[in-house]
Amino acid sequence: MAHALALAARGLGRTWPNPAVGCVITRKGRIIGCGWTQPGGRPHAERRALDQAGDARGATAYVTLEPCAHHGHTPPCAGALIAAGVARVVTALTDPDPRVSGKGHAMLRAAGIAVTENILAEQATRLNAGFLKRVTQGLPFVTLKLATTLDGRIATASGESRWITGPQARRYVHGLRLTHDAVMVGSGTARADDPDLTARDIGATHQPVRILLDRTLSHSPESRLGLTAQQHPVWVLHSPDALPQAQAAWSATGARLLPCPLAHGHLDLTAALKILAAQGITRILSEGGGTVAAALIAAGLVDDLIHLTAGRLIGADGTAALGPLALPRLADAPAFRLIAQQSLGPDTLTQWSRP
Amino acid sequence: MAHALALAARGLGRTWPNPAVGCVITRKGRIIGCGWTQPGGRPHAERRALDQAGDARGATAYVTLEPCAHHGHTPPCAGALIAAGVARVVTALTDPDPRVSGKGHAMLRAAGIAVTENILAEQATRLNAGFLKRVTQGLPFVTLKLATTLDGRIATASGESRWITGPQARRYVHGLRLTHDAVMVGSGTARADDPDLTARDIGATHQPVRILLDRTLSHSPESRLGLTAQQHPVWVLHSPDALPQAQAAWSATGARLLPCPLAHGHLDLTAALKILAAQGITRILSEGGGTVAAALIAAGLVDDLIHLTAGRLIGADGTAALGPLALPRLADAPAFRLIAQQSLGPDTLTQWSRP
Repeated sequence: MAHALALAARGLGRTWPNPAVGCVITRKGRIIGCGWTQPGGRPHAERRALDQAGDARGATAYVTLEPCAHHGHTPPCAGALIAAGVARVVTALTDPDPRVSGKGHAMLRAAGIAVTENILAEQATRLNAGFLKRVTQGLPFVTLKLATTLDGRIATASGESRWITGPQARRYVHGLRLTHDAVMVGSGTARADDPDLTARDIGATHQPVRILLDRTLSHSPESRLGLTAQQHPVWVLHSPDALPQAQAAWSATGARLLPCPLAHGHLDLTAALKILAAQGITRILSEGGGTVAAALIAAGLVDDLIHLTAGRLIGADGTAALGPLALPRLADAPAFRLIAQQSLGPDTLTQWSRP
Repeated sequence: MAHALALAARGLGRTWPNPAVGCVITRKGRIIGCGWTQPGGRPHAERRALDQAGDARGATAYVTLEPCAHHGHTPPCAGALIAAGVARVVTALTDPDPRVSGKGHAMLRAAGIAVTENILAEQATRLNAGFLKRVTQGLPFVTLKLATTLDGRIATASGESRWITGPQARRYVHGLRLTHDAVMVGSGTARADDPDLTARDIGATHQPVRILLDRTLSHSPESRLGLTAQQHPVWVLHSPDALPQAQAAWSATGARLLPCPLAHGHLDLTAALKILAAQGITRILSEGGGTVAAALIAAGLVDDLIHLTAGRLIGADGTAALGPLALPRLADAPAFRLIAQQSLGPDTLTQWSRP
């Protein structure tokens, strides 16, 4: 199952709106087939592993998610496992999708297959947190990236912000983009940095959707995002009241415009994330800036937090990584649990998760 | 030598103004004596190790610092090693104290002893950085402790600041106090937290000198620092112009008053540290707050930085760990090198050093 989970992880960022699943088929203790959900979500992991195995009669299949029981774009995987004559199926999670939700397990058992459930369930839940959150809450899993100095700053008082962290950290972030369905920034960061938000220099064969939160569509269509919107998808969330000429100019770039309701004069981020989940997005990496980060945190929308720290100090007159939260008490400060810690060249990386 | 360095470290915070030295004596590959500088700086490590060895004729002595060659409060250790008849002395560092500075090595060689120098010199330099900096620059080694949220905050907008980090981090800080000769805070932190700055709950048998930077002597003599000044030393650095009645009130607590010159209307921290070095202090732990931290950083006075991070977020309206630095450019941001990284219960600890 651990191997199946490792295979499943290869699909992260490329299988949405489908889950990233891994499958390993063994007979007499030897692996005879491996598969994982392919880009775009098809073929499914089980199909790939069965094809590789050829003859899977009497074999055991380890699958990171309950095999599907419904006819979608592909025939149900539970049926494929039955047809292949496997003797035993081991799964990590029950699929919460109402079209499956135990029906896959039941179908296998009805066919006389021995089924073992919930193996490495915690790891599988974490791996598929995006898919699970979208299905159960209609929201994507959100990773908030903060790349700061030791004192939590992302720019000097004069606005200089590029290259606070080193090349290893930047490379790590490009890899992180690839394991998310979409990368998101606010208009302030877009204006300040003119980012293109692609994953570069790491042999990427696909690119995440690039999302711009821009209520008034004030960011220039002549920006890097606008100019590259035909090559890789750019989605812009904006107020329905944004000027028609700005909407027309952004549409002309090839970007997709998604009107979003407002709350207190700003884009309502809960509504924005629901719109994105409805479009199939399961995992979003929020890369800035402080205003978006604070709004996501304040609304309880952040699941994971990736903190990159450079051994530099900018001081309180620099720009804060996180805007004001207006906390009444210290006890109200949002808390995260430490998941992992390492160095990245001269910088440190810590990963935190919502408890 | 690695063992001798580990023994030497036991003396850190207790041997000032003397260096913390370790000594291991071996014969035929077996350890026959161990010693380290005792509290107060005497007896020296070599004397302790020789006493433990009893008969050290023909033995090899590993010493983390060149043995002293001058009569101070104790007879010179070089002489003691000669008198004991050791055949070989291995040292890590030459003592920069002008009263020694190669004379110890020369004395040993003149007596026919084989001397090997500079073994594990880098580790020994780091261990005795406080002693070396005081002797060579007239300044103490300064460790800056920052205990912050993920976004670099030390208090909420309303000023709530206690217990941002967990019990393991607090315990670590108490241990850290013991490896420094003195612990230092500014008057803002003293007023806000009323700390007593002692090392508690870890079986401490001595306490570091507690230093308060308080230009106007505005902190109350009825504070925890004032009320405990008779039990453990409290030194207060203040402007020579501080009100005479405030000076009298603080003197009456048992605290030691040290007048310090001003620069730009504040205590001149370089002058303050020179005054403290002149009093014998070799290692200072600065524990707050943001104003003192920023002044120390801006003046280039910080050698090591200990960053404790709690998995909490306070937001930009909270109090920053570091005051303004007024950096003209990002390239001017003071840089530190990552030394160590670990978790401390729910929090993280990173240690950074000036390159």
